[in-house]
Amino acid sequence: MALSAFPIATKHSLSPFFKPSTPNYCCKQQFIARASSADKADGDEGKMAIKREKDGLRIDFSGQKPATPLLDTVNHPLHMKNLSTQDLEQLATELREDVVYSVSKTGGHLGANLGVVELSIALHHVFNTPEDKIIWDVGHQAYVHKILTGRRSKMHTLRKTSGLAGFPKRDESIHDAFGAGHSSTSISAGLGMAVARDLLGKKNNVISVIGDGAMTAGQAYEAMNNAGFLDSNLIVVLNDNKQVSLPTATLDGPTTPVGALSSALTKLQASTKFRKLREAAKSITKQIGGPTHDVAAKVDEHARGMISASGSTLFEELGLYYIGPVDGHNVEDLVTIFQKVKAMPAPGPVLIHVVTEKGKGYSPAESAADKMHGVAKFDTKTGQQLKSKSSTLSYTRYFVESLIKEAEADNKIVAIHAAMGGGTGLNYFQKKFPDRCFDVGIAEQHAVTFAAGLAIEGLKPFCAIYSSFLQRGYDQVVHDVDLQKLPVRFAMDRAGLVGADGPTHCGAFDVVYMSCLPNMVVMAPSDEAELMHMVATAAAIDDRPSCFRFPRGNGIGAVLPPNNKGTPLEIGKGRLLMEGDRVAILGYGSIVQQCVEAASLLKSRDISVTVVDARFCKPLDTDLIRQLAKEHEILITVEEGAIGGFSSHVAHFLSLSGILDGPLKLRAMVLPDRYIDHGAPQDQIEAAGLSSRHISATVLSLLGRQKEALLLK
Amino acid sequence: MALSAFPIATKHSLSPFFKPSTPNYCCKQQFIARASSADKADGDEGKMAIKREKDGLRIDFSGQKPATPLLDTVNHPLHMKNLSTQDLEQLATELREDVVYSVSKTGGHLGANLGVVELSIALHHVFNTPEDKIIWDVGHQAYVHKILTGRRSKMHTLRKTSGLAGFPKRDESIHDAFGAGHSSTSISAGLGMAVARDLLGKKNNVISVIGDGAMTAGQAYEAMNNAGFLDSNLIVVLNDNKQVSLPTATLDGPTTPVGALSSALTKLQASTKFRKLREAAKSITKQIGGPTHDVAAKVDEHARGMISASGSTLFEELGLYYIGPVDGHNVEDLVTIFQKVKAMPAPGPVLIHVVTEKGKGYSPAESAADKMHGVAKFDTKTGQQLKSKSSTLSYTRYFVESLIKEAEADNKIVAIHAAMGGGTGLNYFQKKFPDRCFDVGIAEQHAVTFAAGLAIEGLKPFCAIYSSFLQRGYDQVVHDVDLQKLPVRFAMDRAGLVGADGPTHCGAFDVVYMSCLPNMVVMAPSDEAELMHMVATAAAIDDRPSCFRFPRGNGIGAVLPPNNKGTPLEIGKGRLLMEGDRVAILGYGSIVQQCVEAASLLKSRDISVTVVDARFCKPLDTDLIRQLAKEHEILITVEEGAIGGFSSHVAHFLSLSGILDGPLKLRAMVLPDRYIDHGAPQDQIEAAGLSSRHISATVLSLLGRQKEALLLK
Repeated sequence: MALSAFPIATKHSLSPFFKPSTPNYCCKQQFIARASSADKADGDEGKMAIKREKDGLRIDFSGQKPATPLLDTVNHPLHMKNLSTQDLEQLATELREDVVYSVSKTGGHLGANLGVVELSIALHHVFNTPEDKIIWDVGHQAYVHKILTGRRSKMHTLRKTSGLAGFPKRDESIHDAFGAGHSSTSISAGLGMAVARDLLGKKNNVISVIGDGAMTAGQAYEAMNNAGFLDSNLIVVLNDNKQVSLPTATLDGPTTPVGALSSALTKLQASTKFRKLREAAKSITKQIGGPTHDVAAKVDEHARGMISASGSTLFEELGLYYIGPVDGHNVEDLVTIFQKVKAMPAPGPVLIHVVTEKGKGYSPAESAADKMHGVAKFDTKTGQQLKSKSSTLSYTRYFVESLIKEAEADNKIVAIHAAMGGGTGLNYFQKKFPDRCFDVGIAEQHAVTFAAGLAIEGLKPFCAIYSSFLQRGYDQVVHDVDLQKLPVRFAMDRAGLVGADGPTHCGAFDVVYMSCLPNMVVMAPSDEAELMHMVATAAAIDDRPSCFRFPRGNGIGAVLPPNNKGTPLEIGKGRLLMEGDRVAILGYGSIVQQCVEAASLLKSRDISVTVVDARFCKPLDTDLIRQLAKEHEILITVEEGAIGGFSSHVAHFLSLSGILDGPLKLRAMVLPDRYIDHGAPQDQIEAAGLSSRHISATVLSLLGRQKEALLLK
Repeated sequence: MALSAFPIATKHSLSPFFKPSTPNYCCKQQFIARASSADKADGDEGKMAIKREKDGLRIDFSGQKPATPLLDTVNHPLHMKNLSTQDLEQLATELREDVVYSVSKTGGHLGANLGVVELSIALHHVFNTPEDKIIWDVGHQAYVHKILTGRRSKMHTLRKTSGLAGFPKRDESIHDAFGAGHSSTSISAGLGMAVARDLLGKKNNVISVIGDGAMTAGQAYEAMNNAGFLDSNLIVVLNDNKQVSLPTATLDGPTTPVGALSSALTKLQASTKFRKLREAAKSITKQIGGPTHDVAAKVDEHARGMISASGSTLFEELGLYYIGPVDGHNVEDLVTIFQKVKAMPAPGPVLIHVVTEKGKGYSPAESAADKMHGVAKFDTKTGQQLKSKSSTLSYTRYFVESLIKEAEADNKIVAIHAAMGGGTGLNYFQKKFPDRCFDVGIAEQHAVTFAAGLAIEGLKPFCAIYSSFLQRGYDQVVHDVDLQKLPVRFAMDRAGLVGADGPTHCGAFDVVYMSCLPNMVVMAPSDEAELMHMVATAAAIDDRPSCFRFPRGNGIGAVLPPNNKGTPLEIGKGRLLMEGDRVAILGYGSIVQQCVEAASLLKSRDISVTVVDARFCKPLDTDLIRQLAKEHEILITVEEGAIGGFSSHVAHFLSLSGILDGPLKLRAMVLPDRYIDHGAPQDQIEAAGLSSRHISATVLSLLGRQKEALLLK
């Protein structure tokens, strides 16, 4: 699809119309401004930072608190309105220094923020928050935005308890139009705000800033398709920094693009000549009317026809008006384009394709494989991160090490992740088995059903997705995997509390939403050795789906199985860790370590407790639980998750089996698993055992009138 | 973007290369065959059914069991392999009669199946299931496939207990490669199977058949993007029948397309001339090599460039090789194209755009607004459905009637559905408030976040999505609505058991997955009047999200509130329906009716029971539950949902408050809502109250050592 096939023909067809200085064009001034800045950008692309440095805008990464005379005067976007282009460039330099300095003290997301310095400045210079809405997709790139909207003095509290959140948060500032953390929501949210604005007769602008990685998610497509149809005025800024994966490095360097979209974007970036012709034509088309309009429309159409093969049409077919690509580090260009789009009376949905460089302007980030995506505290001179030493590795790492061992022994084992090769550890697997590891992009829905397809053909897929991200593939887990009883294995990393990333990343719900499913085996390891055994268990379970959750953070130093290869556990069996009397503590998952600690704390107070590692939430070890209940006065279940999970399954079993009976007998009548799974189409409530007859029989039986109950059933 | 702007230029550029009879072309025969059949199709498009009838293939919809001499000989796809084109056309006629006859006796999905008669025949004629995999997206159009794969004799059991499922089901036949029910999963699953085939060194074909409606879902895009990248051989058949909504009618007739994609497809269909040139060029490109290839490649590229504006490039940008549009009712064309694609050694992912007509060949279906999408038993002569009379309307209808009343009183109320205007009843709302009703396509993810955006600007969105379909927007419910505490109202229709549609549509999990969320108000009405009050309650709750579930089927005849307008209920308060002693039955949702019936059944046995309609699962009416527990010996909770929902929340409260204490004291320690919601980044387990100190304190306190416990906390 290379464009070079017809360079001459194109030039020829365009040239009769392409005369920007014709007096007819009412917006000549603007048009020329745009064209000239494009020319400039074209001449020395990629060298601007250096040039600015040569011009005297030295960037200071000495580690000292940088002098930021201009930034010091900006405590609200209003303070930036009258700044000249040169001032804005100065501001960019100071912001870059400030971000590096402040993140070096707190840790956080660095690379993405360095990439959007100019973009953030241009947006806040042209648009007026909070009336205008800027929605940062994912949101880890919103530090510059936070600094410019009155939160600079709190940057030292970033990602700390009661401090600034690492993502936009509506509670935190009226300038944060929409909270984020997960990707690809910004166009949907922006469209909602735009439509509401129109219904309410307001006039503000809505701008969704979304990365090219986030564009791989289905929700972005759904939203664009709907935006194209509704035709509300909405500005989508596609922040194209060639990042389709987060974090963005494999073991051997930056990831290659995993979606066809990426290559389309790349081609589009490369085609400078056509881009300029095309932008010129478009400016004309939109801004003038009358007979000239027809001529210009033809230029535009032809330009579209010829350029289409390079990628822009994807957006255009979805109904967005495409502008770009634009150099995202050229404040002047950005400001010009934003002003122009803002001035259009009814542009409908517009997509401005902005090309930025992650880590821009800070050479340790620019040269890092992951562009210093997420960092601990670091030395600003070298970029060297000050990571705390630990004698153990992360759970993630133990997971992948044992998965590699399983895969060495069984060539049917394959692994899938959704743009999280680093986060899930599967980069290590990828390195070892490049043909058996699939990065599907930010596309959890597809990841799950794709895994179902692999399983059907006899492969043994491990789908590694963070607990909170798997929420995005939930229907696929239910519909494509569980109801078909397909042996897909879900490795749910970052389960339970996750620390600095906060509520959006908290894996609070997985036990709840997985263990309500009929066929799922639901496990959680209490330590890293158990994790390895559960990887082996999941590999061995080949007749139904299974999952296991494990936390963020490091292992506890458990003795690992020989050669890091686990042994399959007996399904549905817990293990006794300590035997005591009167009190039993039944833990599920890594929180078992707290139970063990509690046991020694209590032992020091002469209370000896039984501690059990449940291992399985589904199927429950009912024998063990029954025994615990019978032999103790107190049974405490502990889990790092919401109501409805492990403890609920234990309570359901205990009450149903009469073990809880005291002054009150509690019975819960719910849809049984076998019924959810097979679901007879007729006489359904009757068949499911929830009819008035069944309820009555339950009552009669509890009242000791078994004979009558039997007759009813 | 009309193509007509440059007809001459295009013709001119193509003509030097476009000479299909040049002796170089090795595949001339095939190429000509294709081109000639395209010509034929072009000449009398849309008239073929009539023509065939004239040719003697009279279609019999008399209501008598049709004579099907050819179909009677086909009990396996093998039996179709040697049939001539004429035979296949005959088979199509007989199948159409057979499907109409059989569905008229059972009810089911009619329109979609009539649309894919020729497509199903052509697929089974060319490909060999079960080795080749045919994946029917959504799957309600798989009746013809079922008939052709040995299940004709069981068609009378369709959608009945122990009968044939209404969708493909792996348990049912080895020819059903993938189970379905929800839309847009087929490309993901097919890609998984294709990749697995390649890894395992097999050679079979994988064909995903997906509708244009299903193409609006994000998952289809995710899968295409990944397919374009992986470049496995995969055939995607886009069954374009201009159906972006299911069921497919508004109150005033067929729905208008809701996505920009639809208009792109429409344009594509219209462009016959370019299509033919292009297909010709493509056939050449793929099938020949050497220097001629370069020439042909240029033709192809130019053709692509010129055609792009008409829509095909969306698929091409995603990396699929586009072929089409093809007349989906021309068996000969379909067979030719499938044979050609099958013969290509390594085509990569190919998308064949097939245009079909829903309800094709059966005039009552063709002329029905909804193309007889889903039908009850009907009279084959007239298409008149034999619906059982009921004195009450569906819950769906009561929902929408009361929503209209709320919207009349409050112009901030808006409604969103995901291509389910008929199913959710929102067509009635749409008719009344066309500007305040949004059909976003099959795009639940976008629907939810879009609603969040609307809520932020002060509108009051009601998002009406079936219980099982909302699973697809779960992450958005958590991340975009609940964690931001935005007042989006979820109306979850088809909650609980759903009858004939079976497990994929069973709304078993909503109470579980909604009530684990920190901010959500979770309700379920016990009858249609309560539903109306809950609509009013949800409208009134404007500081946090809320949801209510209601079942498929008709109301019980409850006395409706005046003018169908509900009154907001007190949040978190249940209601006592009957007072008895010893036994209390606590129902949640429409199953309360069974509880009431049970009460009268028990009363006839001299057992008087208390019956309570819980109304709320979250927040729970803890006062009422405490009272029930204290005043009765037996407490039975009843709900139409999985473990982890209402009963679990009741049990959690009861055990935590010590009410269940008997021989055993059960306590569950879980992540508290307030912590999931706010999540301090540091000292997390400590802050969440799950540390060993907290566990120890709980034990000490239960052992009566309060003072020590206090010191620990």
